[in-house]
Amino acid sequence: MRIGVLGTGMVGQTIATKLVELGHEVTMGARSAGSEKAVGWAAGAGDAASAGSFADATAHGELVFNCTAGTASIEALRAAGDEELRGKVLVDVANPLDFSRGMPPTLSVCNDDSLGELIQSTFPDTRVVKALNTVNAAVMVNPIEGTNVFVCDDDDAAKDEVKALLHDFGWPADSVLDLGGIDGARGMEMYLPLWLRMMGALGTPSFNIAIVR
Amino acid sequence: MRIGVLGTGMVGQTIATKLVELGHEVTMGARSAGSEKAVGWAAGAGDAASAGSFADATAHGELVFNCTAGTASIEALRAAGDEELRGKVLVDVANPLDFSRGMPPTLSVCNDDSLGELIQSTFPDTRVVKALNTVNAAVMVNPIEGTNVFVCDDDDAAKDEVKALLHDFGWPADSVLDLGGIDGARGMEMYLPLWLRMMGALGTPSFNIAIVR
Repeated sequence: MRIGVLGTGMVGQTIATKLVELGHEVTMGARSAGSEKAVGWAAGAGDAASAGSFADATAHGELVFNCTAGTASIEALRAAGDEELRGKVLVDVANPLDFSRGMPPTLSVCNDDSLGELIQSTFPDTRVVKALNTVNAAVMVNPIEGTNVFVCDDDDAAKDEVKALLHDFGWPADSVLDLGGIDGARGMEMYLPLWLRMMGALGTPSFNIAIVR
Repeated sequence: MRIGVLGTGMVGQTIATKLVELGHEVTMGARSAGSEKAVGWAAGAGDAASAGSFADATAHGELVFNCTAGTASIEALRAAGDEELRGKVLVDVANPLDFSRGMPPTLSVCNDDSLGELIQSTFPDTRVVKALNTVNAAVMVNPIEGTNVFVCDDDDAAKDEVKALLHDFGWPADSVLDLGGIDGARGMEMYLPLWLRMMGALGTPSFNIAIVR
């Protein structure tokens, strides 16, 4: 599959590399087409990897990952282009973490809205699926056995596509809890303040939660 | 130990009953001293159980549980009385869930503040420990094996008292993750929107999360 990965940070690099390993053709998109980080990644990631602008990566992708910083995601997606995003599944793994008021960060949107919903309402013809934002980059593509991740979206077919990708990442079908519509993003994003404090207490970002009944 | 339990709902009843079972002398406090629910609970809970007003229960307790509805907690604690609360450990298990805007509820305070912090700043001489708000009432006193709960407070001695009580409730020492100061309540309370959606997806409130590294 042709996939666009927006964002050149740790999350973008990790997701893009995993997708190439799985046999996909991946374009990493950055603010500018000549981004050192994106070009550097593509140079080391093999023939199926390329780099470009947000718009290039989005045009390339049949499916697109939003791995940009949450507070910059709307701007990045506007640069990607409403037309290019139209009708496509956009996997939103970003968190709206606002570091401007110190550590730990607050959320730039929460409670009665979420980044996932904000992206969906800004790009109503894009099929936004929130996923994987509850674990750190390494865990996204190297699931911790027995733990859970979440997906939400109002579009079941879009969710199924994302669940299939998560399965390829190593997440067993029963490890992915479907939280329903895109407003479930509020829950998935508001978990971050707890995640950050757990990371502090545990001394590592390499953990996840398992739901136990 | 003499313990006051503020609140007559499911959480208050469950905690109060468990405390009596553990051998404590418990007064359940309500808005009015003649509360049917509190008096009814005390009548059925044995000689070590009594009922009274918020102030009665707080005066009785060497330690006090806040099991009131989160949006009514400050008012309830004002009724309990600043003087009565002074110097005591207050275990805050409440969540600031606001149902006025429909389901699922939003939080009446979050992100750059929390109910735990609000109680601490309103009653600076009370030793507020946030605990147990991340599981439903039945799970609070019947831990699900292998799962975790959290505590936070700036006062380590107060936290130790609460950890000892949690241990008596059945939570093994290594199941209780200490998140540091009382601002950790932001994380513990902002987890609720995810908890509520998990409950919806799982079809039961009888679950909890296990931290897996």
